[in-house]
Amino acid sequence: VTAPTRTPAAVPLDPALVGSLEDVVGAAQVLTDPDVVASYARDWTGRFIGATQAVVRPGSVDEVAEVVARCRDQGVAIVPQGGNTGMVGGSVPLHGEVVVSLRRLAAVGPVDAAAGQLTAQAGVTLADVQAAARDAGWAYGVDLGGRDSATIGGNVATNAGGLRVLRYGDTRAQLLGVEAVLGTGDVVEHLGGLLKDNTGYALHSLLCGSEGTLGIVTAVRLRLVPPAPQRVAAILGMKDTSSAVAAALELRRTLPALSAAELMLSDGIDLVCRVTGSPPPLAGPHEAYLLVEASGTADPTGDLTTAVAALPGVEDAAVAVEPRRIDALFRYREGHTEAVNSLGVPHKLDVTLPNGVLAEMVDRLPSVVRTVAPDASVWLFGHVGDGNVHVNVTGLAPDDERVDDTVLRAVAEVGGSISAEHGIGTAKRRWLSLNRSEAELRAFAALKRALDPAGIMNPHVLVGP
Amino acid sequence: VTAPTRTPAAVPLDPALVGSLEDVVGAAQVLTDPDVVASYARDWTGRFIGATQAVVRPGSVDEVAEVVARCRDQGVAIVPQGGNTGMVGGSVPLHGEVVVSLRRLAAVGPVDAAAGQLTAQAGVTLADVQAAARDAGWAYGVDLGGRDSATIGGNVATNAGGLRVLRYGDTRAQLLGVEAVLGTGDVVEHLGGLLKDNTGYALHSLLCGSEGTLGIVTAVRLRLVPPAPQRVAAILGMKDTSSAVAAALELRRTLPALSAAELMLSDGIDLVCRVTGSPPPLAGPHEAYLLVEASGTADPTGDLTTAVAALPGVEDAAVAVEPRRIDALFRYREGHTEAVNSLGVPHKLDVTLPNGVLAEMVDRLPSVVRTVAPDASVWLFGHVGDGNVHVNVTGLAPDDERVDDTVLRAVAEVGGSISAEHGIGTAKRRWLSLNRSEAELRAFAALKRALDPAGIMNPHVLVGP
Repeated sequence: VTAPTRTPAAVPLDPALVGSLEDVVGAAQVLTDPDVVASYARDWTGRFIGATQAVVRPGSVDEVAEVVARCRDQGVAIVPQGGNTGMVGGSVPLHGEVVVSLRRLAAVGPVDAAAGQLTAQAGVTLADVQAAARDAGWAYGVDLGGRDSATIGGNVATNAGGLRVLRYGDTRAQLLGVEAVLGTGDVVEHLGGLLKDNTGYALHSLLCGSEGTLGIVTAVRLRLVPPAPQRVAAILGMKDTSSAVAAALELRRTLPALSAAELMLSDGIDLVCRVTGSPPPLAGPHEAYLLVEASGTADPTGDLTTAVAALPGVEDAAVAVEPRRIDALFRYREGHTEAVNSLGVPHKLDVTLPNGVLAEMVDRLPSVVRTVAPDASVWLFGHVGDGNVHVNVTGLAPDDERVDDTVLRAVAEVGGSISAEHGIGTAKRRWLSLNRSEAELRAFAALKRALDPAGIMNPHVLVGP
Repeated sequence: VTAPTRTPAAVPLDPALVGSLEDVVGAAQVLTDPDVVASYARDWTGRFIGATQAVVRPGSVDEVAEVVARCRDQGVAIVPQGGNTGMVGGSVPLHGEVVVSLRRLAAVGPVDAAAGQLTAQAGVTLADVQAAARDAGWAYGVDLGGRDSATIGGNVATNAGGLRVLRYGDTRAQLLGVEAVLGTGDVVEHLGGLLKDNTGYALHSLLCGSEGTLGIVTAVRLRLVPPAPQRVAAILGMKDTSSAVAAALELRRTLPALSAAELMLSDGIDLVCRVTGSPPPLAGPHEAYLLVEASGTADPTGDLTTAVAALPGVEDAAVAVEPRRIDALFRYREGHTEAVNSLGVPHKLDVTLPNGVLAEMVDRLPSVVRTVAPDASVWLFGHVGDGNVHVNVTGLAPDDERVDDTVLRAVAEVGGSISAEHGIGTAKRRWLSLNRSEAELRAFAALKRALDPAGIMNPHVLVGP
């Protein structure tokens, strides 16, 4: 989406503040060189470009707490940053905030291999969490494309979703507790990992998805899931979008081993094949494609083929059992990002639609876009198993928000969410009231004031000033 | 546990308040007759006995909101009440509060059979939620003994646990959204049931487990789970507690179909057999017993017997595949409550222990109790698959808190939780600081002030005045 990006302008250096922060973390961990801080001040897409006088890299939770306390005392706003892989401008200093980078908090452990749990500091990448889970004989339930850069702290701050939500839930569902520094400067810590623990408010669940506006998550306790080493995938050529959506829903009920259900459309598949040079996944073209994966401890191939055989609207199917072939099928889906990017910087809208209108809206959204942008191209794909559709629009000026506005309003009108898994950040803040009532926004503001009374924690994100 | 029970004393009637509440809900739905309100003022165990001038029974969320607003305006405290099946004195008016009974909010629906979700008003019983899920071709992931009386609103307010947490998670894990009246009188509603929806703070997760101290949940949107009609259970005679605990943990990893893992000890089994007249579950006596259940769409018998065969410490086992035989095995576990009650009113402590110390603590707790109560009897059993042990102590005076204090301190010292699934209520409030730091308690108090600034929502529960 087109964000309220800012022209990068130098933020005047406050030597007293910088000195004070250096006292906390050491001079080497307060970055002020404009060339160095620039990489922290812009996001990976290059669409959100801000500026900061300082990037602070604390090495412990106590240092994070002291940094927050000193910023609070001086009324200086903070943007917490992990891998800086966000999509909505939530982790870059668009208003000159001090950046608190959590990447030095990169320890994994303790790991409880017997119980299937682990603790990781906020700066550990998702891929490293997944690896630590594997090493312990388990798996981590969340997976997404940014796994090598995205940090677990950022995953928690944004309640990251991805490919496996329909099987294992979102990040919040994996989260047993956190250590965090609240906007008050207080450190809260509840990392014991007890599965049943009703001793107060679910602070960890509240912080998850709060996008750095209530505090800074410094460590997390995660539940792991049993490994599912036996995998099978199939790409289904579907008669139409309705059949594909209905099939995904049906498989959620009839195939407990289902671990992914991804929708693609014929024009997206064509584009991916053209850009990547891949052959078509099936012999003939089909209006819609459903990529499904099942996994478990036992070979799920029989269950998957039985379940697929019972689905209406399947015109053709290819089943993959070898990992290499499975990966090849997933490249059709994951290749969409690269293929769409090859056409220019897309407007990336990430929405969830209610099941009852999902197919109809997928069919209708291109014409919705064309009401305001007749020459734009619309690319639709996504985690249809949980109603999540990525709406990519190319052929628009980067700062043209008319399409975003039109699409998000259309989505909200049918009861959909304007953010499925990317969050609100700064980019979608002007549309939050499409999904949330004044009463809810008042409650959010009250919670924000409760845990961040000075209003220094990511003040331009989500709730806003 | 021994609670700060109050001698029931008449609460002076405030005719202006009663009249005002009658204006909202109708005279017939404001109960003031002392004989009638008495049943709302005491809990089902008979241990928590309070008094109230009025029980208000609103018939809609708008009526709930107006009741809250009028109580707030007059500074009158409220205790929300569902099925009144709580264990910790959280739903009875121990300080003369007005009781707001949610039982008239008893509608189920809409149900989305395709997606596996349903909406239920707060006053629907857990059993009726389970039945509605079954009717839609799904199952509800939470089950517990109080199912026929406990309401789903109370389940959410206390984040209810029960038998299936190790398989499907706690109530919070089932909760996609709520409609609620906050302490401010504001109505918040987010019942769309979108699986991916990152548009603000997780109010529903925060309200879940807040024990009526932030607001009143009036309706909930729940995710359902695929039905698991094929069941098998086994009772394992184990060499000792350690083997039983280790076996439960191992099964969680090796048997994905595991749906219950309950620990019992030889003295508890003997007592159950004596009180209920049942024959012993296995030929010989065993120091510990593990009751395990597996369920799924495919017959899990083979998987269960294979997994059990690989466990060390199994001295004997009986497998049940017929529903009647499975129920008979579960009666050994569920019979513990009745059997222990037959010895007198027990002190019921509900704790979670970290896996690493679980077996040791189960062995040690009887001697911990005897340090302060040499003649007491200790009965230990519980959902050991998630570390949850119910510590029942008989042979104590009802108001003797020394045992409670000693046990809860011992549990907290090893990193355990003083409340696994019952919550804090009024009964355990004096011990909450064993589990929660001053920083956490400050955060809880700030959240309480944010959503209940007048301090009228269950003010003597959990956070406290």
